[in-house]
Amino acid sequence: MTRQGDRRLHVNLHLDQAGHHIAAWRRNGHDLSRYDDITYDIELVRLAERGLLDSIFIADAPMLLHNARYRVPFLEPITLLAAYAVATSRIGLIATASTTYFEPYNLARQFASLDRISGGRAGWNIVTTALTGAARNFGDRELRDHDGRYRDAEEFVDVVTKLWDSWEADAVVADPAGGVFVDTGKVHAIDHRGRVFDVAGPLNVPRSAQGRPLLVQAGASEAGRSFGARFGEVIFTNQLSLESARAYYADIKRRAAGFGRAPEEIFILPGIKPVLASTEAEARRRAAELAELIEPEIGRTILTWQVDGIELPEMPLDEPFPDLTATLPPEVRSRYARLVEMARQHDMTTGRLLRRLAAGTHREFIGTPEMLADDMEEWFRAHGADGFTLQPQELPEGLEVFVDHVVPILQRRGLFRREYEGTTLRDLFGLPPVPSRHAVG
Amino acid sequence: MTRQGDRRLHVNLHLDQAGHHIAAWRRNGHDLSRYDDITYDIELVRLAERGLLDSIFIADAPMLLHNARYRVPFLEPITLLAAYAVATSRIGLIATASTTYFEPYNLARQFASLDRISGGRAGWNIVTTALTGAARNFGDRELRDHDGRYRDAEEFVDVVTKLWDSWEADAVVADPAGGVFVDTGKVHAIDHRGRVFDVAGPLNVPRSAQGRPLLVQAGASEAGRSFGARFGEVIFTNQLSLESARAYYADIKRRAAGFGRAPEEIFILPGIKPVLASTEAEARRRAAELAELIEPEIGRTILTWQVDGIELPEMPLDEPFPDLTATLPPEVRSRYARLVEMARQHDMTTGRLLRRLAAGTHREFIGTPEMLADDMEEWFRAHGADGFTLQPQELPEGLEVFVDHVVPILQRRGLFRREYEGTTLRDLFGLPPVPSRHAVG
Repeated sequence: MTRQGDRRLHVNLHLDQAGHHIAAWRRNGHDLSRYDDITYDIELVRLAERGLLDSIFIADAPMLLHNARYRVPFLEPITLLAAYAVATSRIGLIATASTTYFEPYNLARQFASLDRISGGRAGWNIVTTALTGAARNFGDRELRDHDGRYRDAEEFVDVVTKLWDSWEADAVVADPAGGVFVDTGKVHAIDHRGRVFDVAGPLNVPRSAQGRPLLVQAGASEAGRSFGARFGEVIFTNQLSLESARAYYADIKRRAAGFGRAPEEIFILPGIKPVLASTEAEARRRAAELAELIEPEIGRTILTWQVDGIELPEMPLDEPFPDLTATLPPEVRSRYARLVEMARQHDMTTGRLLRRLAAGTHREFIGTPEMLADDMEEWFRAHGADGFTLQPQELPEGLEVFVDHVVPILQRRGLFRREYEGTTLRDLFGLPPVPSRHAVG
Repeated sequence: MTRQGDRRLHVNLHLDQAGHHIAAWRRNGHDLSRYDDITYDIELVRLAERGLLDSIFIADAPMLLHNARYRVPFLEPITLLAAYAVATSRIGLIATASTTYFEPYNLARQFASLDRISGGRAGWNIVTTALTGAARNFGDRELRDHDGRYRDAEEFVDVVTKLWDSWEADAVVADPAGGVFVDTGKVHAIDHRGRVFDVAGPLNVPRSAQGRPLLVQAGASEAGRSFGARFGEVIFTNQLSLESARAYYADIKRRAAGFGRAPEEIFILPGIKPVLASTEAEARRRAAELAELIEPEIGRTILTWQVDGIELPEMPLDEPFPDLTATLPPEVRSRYARLVEMARQHDMTTGRLLRRLAAGTHREFIGTPEMLADDMEEWFRAHGADGFTLQPQELPEGLEVFVDHVVPILQRRGLFRREYEGTTLRDLFGLPPVPSRHAVG
């Protein structure tokens, strides 16, 4: 499709059990015991599949979050997605996993297994993880500097893709007469000896229907953008205005071209956090109700999480949010600077910013399905986005409204699929299966 | 149950897609494409659940096996079991994972996630992995000596159980009025600083319905037996005669008591590899057919796998299997010695041993359902076993016959459950949920 110029909008659901607003679980009438039960998650994922969404995505950090007290706990993403795989048949399944805290052989193998279990629907969201709390769970390893982490991550991804390529697509011959199940001549050692990793291979999992999992990335810094443009097939990004989104979009596509890649084969999906209702007034009322569920204490905890646990000075809630960027350690400066930008843009006091943060740092959208469809179309046509990473502030309601009311509008406008284009995640992005680097011809 | 002296036999299915005979996939009439499809595995697991089996178990090694050419490839066990979890509701799910090649935080978290996804049905088969091929996939780490690996494994298990205990059972309060989802006063850092591992914790996954995953182990050496008796709740073992099984059983229970444990709370399940049919003659015919599918080349490969890839001298197929134990590196001696014992016991030539090895090294049983039930009862009553790790040589047939014909006999004799005793894996063994070490009272 992409190649015919018939550009289509993609929607990736960022799954969070109760919704992306941290206090969404507190609203009235919710059966809280449901969060304890995998069947609830599975209903959400099936709802996303009924809406023909491209994929669901699970964020991750290998540590107890600073805001754990106030939110529904989450499980390990690869394990979760293997469970969702057998409860669905078409939707893509994207798990976050860190290049800093996994062994490449284990990660390659678990994703390859997920890719086979799901019939070729796996994606790996590559993160490098710069969190003190995570480091302390893994031998208190010193946090590497930002660029160093990305250099290590490049080698990590190199090893993982070599392992995925170690099986040619036709290595499984299953020849009962000859007694050979696997033509081991088509399974190749990788013999990787690098700066950080020594891995002999081959992997012990055959190639999947889509060749290998889709690579997903979300870098915002210089090193992150370069990494994403080089390896990423789908890019998540946090863009608060169409102007910044267009600049980011152009930059990533240009960089991708610089790495010899076709710019239309890298898909940029900014985050959007809707609160939807049939009228704008009703949507505003719902958003206000959510905001009222936030105690200032929760906001402080979320702010602490944004700066990786660093103790910040007292900030009066009714004064403008202070710009302390220069006083912070380099690792957290870009995250804090984004908060300052957000506060400036909307002239926010600290108190208002903290309430706003309760739903995450991505772009908020409050309105009707029609208004959201208009917004998405505008960003899509203006080349600010190839689609969106949907972060409904309340679940399942936000997803129900999206599936039943936004999707049909996008379909009528010719922007969104009316049926799944194939069986693999790559099929949904119009990407062919990846051949092994060892495949001839 | 155990406590009332009403001892019941347990059956754990060692899952291997085509069966434990390496050439079972070659027999006539099999749709080989099924092995490519998770729905086939799921049918097997559901069949085991229909038969009220305690658990299924998946073996593992993080490398391409030496015999990969001749067998159906297998996926990563934790991922697989998460998929099986949502397709079943009662049967236990035991995955093998290595203390040598996983980070304890990742392993603790993935098993805790599996345990929650399955509603408390997870078990971890703890292995230390002494394979050169595996080491080469993980930084070419030097293989530690046998006792050193077990010392490291003890610390690994200590860290993992501390992480599992870091959440008290009532830490999730989900109080919408107070705005608190998790009482973080009941989630504890572990601050482990050990000889090998530094892990701060806490884990980010709440406690499961059974407290924590069941610990499973299969050590045969001195260090392995001690480790199993200290940590194992279920013990797999390879015993070729009732006499040796009784000695092993008594030894493990005695050692467990020495660690202050109740001997009836550790369950010993020797492997058994049946070929079953309605008459003994028919079973023998089936076993002979399987044996004919083995080329000598396959036997050689399996022998190489038994000695971790070491090149052995030529062995004429029609001469007695030579005892080379003393000439081999210490790491593989106990495995080779077991082969010598097997060959001596049945006066086998090298050729016959190689054919025999094609179905694995565990005890073979060829006969009718009635004969197998008699054999199991004898071992069970003689305290050679608390149950069995079932390794059908052909699947699904071997499991179908077991479920439909052996289970009813065991039930009539009062040896096997007529319905599942609860919802967790610990329930099936009559074990109470494990409380967190931080729980008071």
